[in-house]
Amino acid sequence: MRSFAASRSPCPIGRASRILGDRWALLILREAFLGVDRFDDFLDRLPISRAVLTARLKMLVDAQVLARDPPSGKRATYKLTEAGNDLFPMLTALRQWGDRWLFEPGHRPLPIHTRHGEDVAPVEVRTTGGKAVVAADRVLWDD
Amino acid sequence: MRSFAASRSPCPIGRASRILGDRWALLILREAFLGVDRFDDFLDRLPISRAVLTARLKMLVDAQVLARDPPSGKRATYKLTEAGNDLFPMLTALRQWGDRWLFEPGHRPLPIHTRHGEDVAPVEVRTTGGKAVVAADRVLWDD
Repeated sequence: MRSFAASRSPCPIGRASRILGDRWALLILREAFLGVDRFDDFLDRLPISRAVLTARLKMLVDAQVLARDPPSGKRATYKLTEAGNDLFPMLTALRQWGDRWLFEPGHRPLPIHTRHGEDVAPVEVRTTGGKAVVAADRVLWDD
Repeated sequence: MRSFAASRSPCPIGRASRILGDRWALLILREAFLGVDRFDDFLDRLPISRAVLTARLKMLVDAQVLARDPPSGKRATYKLTEAGNDLFPMLTALRQWGDRWLFEPGHRPLPIHTRHGEDVAPVEVRTTGGKAVVAADRVLWDD
């Protein structure tokens, strides 16, 4: 399944920013990764109005990041689609960045436990051959 | 240097969403990673108004993601700080997600070339011991 193309931009960041360049979308997705899937539960857990939550859930369903079941009617669930689950690296990198840069000195980042019995390591960019890539490497982002 | 704490949320995604949950912030950062560093050049390259660009650059400077030099006055440059450069994994993951999910069937993702002579691989989440972690692993995000 291929997600809704939110814009005609030739740039994938341009297209993705129409969906994820939104504070509420990021918070709704955080809750979805925590297992929240019902309108009233999102509403309980986020400082969001019904109107904004309704609009953002519709946007995320239209973008095929969340799937509404049933598609219309009451008592629906909103679950991450395959495209939604594939946001896991981006959201993990965002979370780790926030943990590194947006807290007071001495803050200890929250570990992310896994069923592997080992915690999640910092998300890194690597080449196909496994070499670490940092921004200072002056990667050529084809424009 | 530690970036400005944009909110008092205990959640790093909550804090980060105040800075990066914004379409223009993501596009400005994309341009910054491409080497753009002057107001008029951002203005030329993005479909953004002067007022919105001014506001978003100020927000990113306040968040210590971009550094303005000189801090006030004309002919300033806006360059990625250490915290800004550290957004590279998140933005790369976002870009790759957009390339996978937001284009028409048959779209070939743009390669990201590196000076290592190898292209960038898909950003993955791994444990400290190197095991791949996917959302379906039901990672426990401490709440």
